[in-house]
Amino acid sequence: MGKFTEITSKDNKVIKYVSKLQKSSKFRFSERKIVIEGLRISEDVFENNASVYCLIVNNNFTQKFSDKVTAFADKAQNNYQISDALFERISDTETPQGILLVVDMPLENYEIDPYKKYIALDNLQDPSNFGAITRTCEALGVGGIIMNNTTCDPFSPKSIRASMGTILRMPIFMTDNLSSFFKENNLKSFSCVVDSDAKPISSIDFKSGDVIIIGNEANGISKQVKDNSDFKITIPMSGRAESLNAAAAAAIAIYELTK
Amino acid sequence: MGKFTEITSKDNKVIKYVSKLQKSSKFRFSERKIVIEGLRISEDVFENNASVYCLIVNNNFTQKFSDKVTAFADKAQNNYQISDALFERISDTETPQGILLVVDMPLENYEIDPYKKYIALDNLQDPSNFGAITRTCEALGVGGIIMNNTTCDPFSPKSIRASMGTILRMPIFMTDNLSSFFKENNLKSFSCVVDSDAKPISSIDFKSGDVIIIGNEANGISKQVKDNSDFKITIPMSGRAESLNAAAAAAIAIYELTK
Repeated sequence: MGKFTEITSKDNKVIKYVSKLQKSSKFRFSERKIVIEGLRISEDVFENNASVYCLIVNNNFTQKFSDKVTAFADKAQNNYQISDALFERISDTETPQGILLVVDMPLENYEIDPYKKYIALDNLQDPSNFGAITRTCEALGVGGIIMNNTTCDPFSPKSIRASMGTILRMPIFMTDNLSSFFKENNLKSFSCVVDSDAKPISSIDFKSGDVIIIGNEANGISKQVKDNSDFKITIPMSGRAESLNAAAAAAIAIYELTK
Repeated sequence: MGKFTEITSKDNKVIKYVSKLQKSSKFRFSERKIVIEGLRISEDVFENNASVYCLIVNNNFTQKFSDKVTAFADKAQNNYQISDALFERISDTETPQGILLVVDMPLENYEIDPYKKYIALDNLQDPSNFGAITRTCEALGVGGIIMNNTTCDPFSPKSIRASMGTILRMPIFMTDNLSSFFKENNLKSFSCVVDSDAKPISSIDFKSGDVIIIGNEANGISKQVKDNSDFKITIPMSGRAESLNAAAAAAIAIYELTK
């Protein structure tokens, strides 16, 4: 059985390391590690035999799920037991379940598959929107998410939580320049906008190799990206345009892209 | 100019009243009053000449937006000025903007319009989902939202915030029994489910008088409501079905309903 080390001090280096991973995007990327929290997503990770660098559980969780904890501990590289109070310090949630894992950042060297369809994010800022969009992409079979580097960190605690763990399985492509990326990968790009001269999204027959671009929550798609895209498309609205939020617009766009 | 009363004590009865409205759904319904927070939604309310029972601003907000505060105060029935610290006590947000209003609960005696289309919620639990769905309903022109009384309170702080104020304008119908409500109002009902024998949603030609039912986040639509609905429809998914969250599924359903 995997052995547990008990940590009691908030100044312990493991506690400090996890706290920093939770708070700092820069640190996550320099370490290439992320933190995931919660039982369901942890079960997913262990079932997929992902490499778990560190398992941390609190006393309450161990009492409630002793069988699971034993099974998880056999698979993780390092196991730590901490108090409920200390767990609250390193948790990103208001009511922590009492289990978290440190795993490798799921950034493999993916390649664009010409037989799939993609979603691109241009300067999307809300991590909950990123997570929600990833869920929809997985449910409807999008090949991956292409994001520029002004878009929020997909591996922040909020994004991971909103994604219900789908962010661990979805291919993510990061680029300095969306337009160049589309060209290099022979993707036909569609800017999803509210412009009156854009084509209704339902009139498009989307094919493999197509990518729909979703813009920033407040300002939409940047001019440079829009001007360089192949088509402008829109979701016709009868009510106030600002009513449709980015995750809802994306859900509709992904549905039309993949149906 | 509307006069301001300064409140300094957390035991003041206005402070206690607003706190209770923020926290208790029961109290909101017995008082028929709700609390809204933030500048943008407050501007909406005043522009629509809604009756504002009470305006509360903190010192920071008054300094930043003195012109707006003066204009608002002329329209509200009661105006209160409080410290930033006291405002934090009654605010539901982590970083309050420093303005909140108490207004009448927007529950008029709406009637179903046979020329419109509707969304029904069966035991939906997450107020953020309720708010998000309301935004989409407004953007795409849904006639109203029909909810049963096990669905969450649409007028909780979280729901109002997620709705971006659209909850104040959207007709809401509350009922003990969705199935009876549909029959009494001659609505044709479509249960949005993941059952394999349901028709793909894109194959339906939705008409006025149609209503799509969205179920509970974890358990979907209850058996009684589903069995009594006229049709079962589904959003075809290639990925994991549990990936699509309620707000995203609703966005797609509303899009198909209204397009």
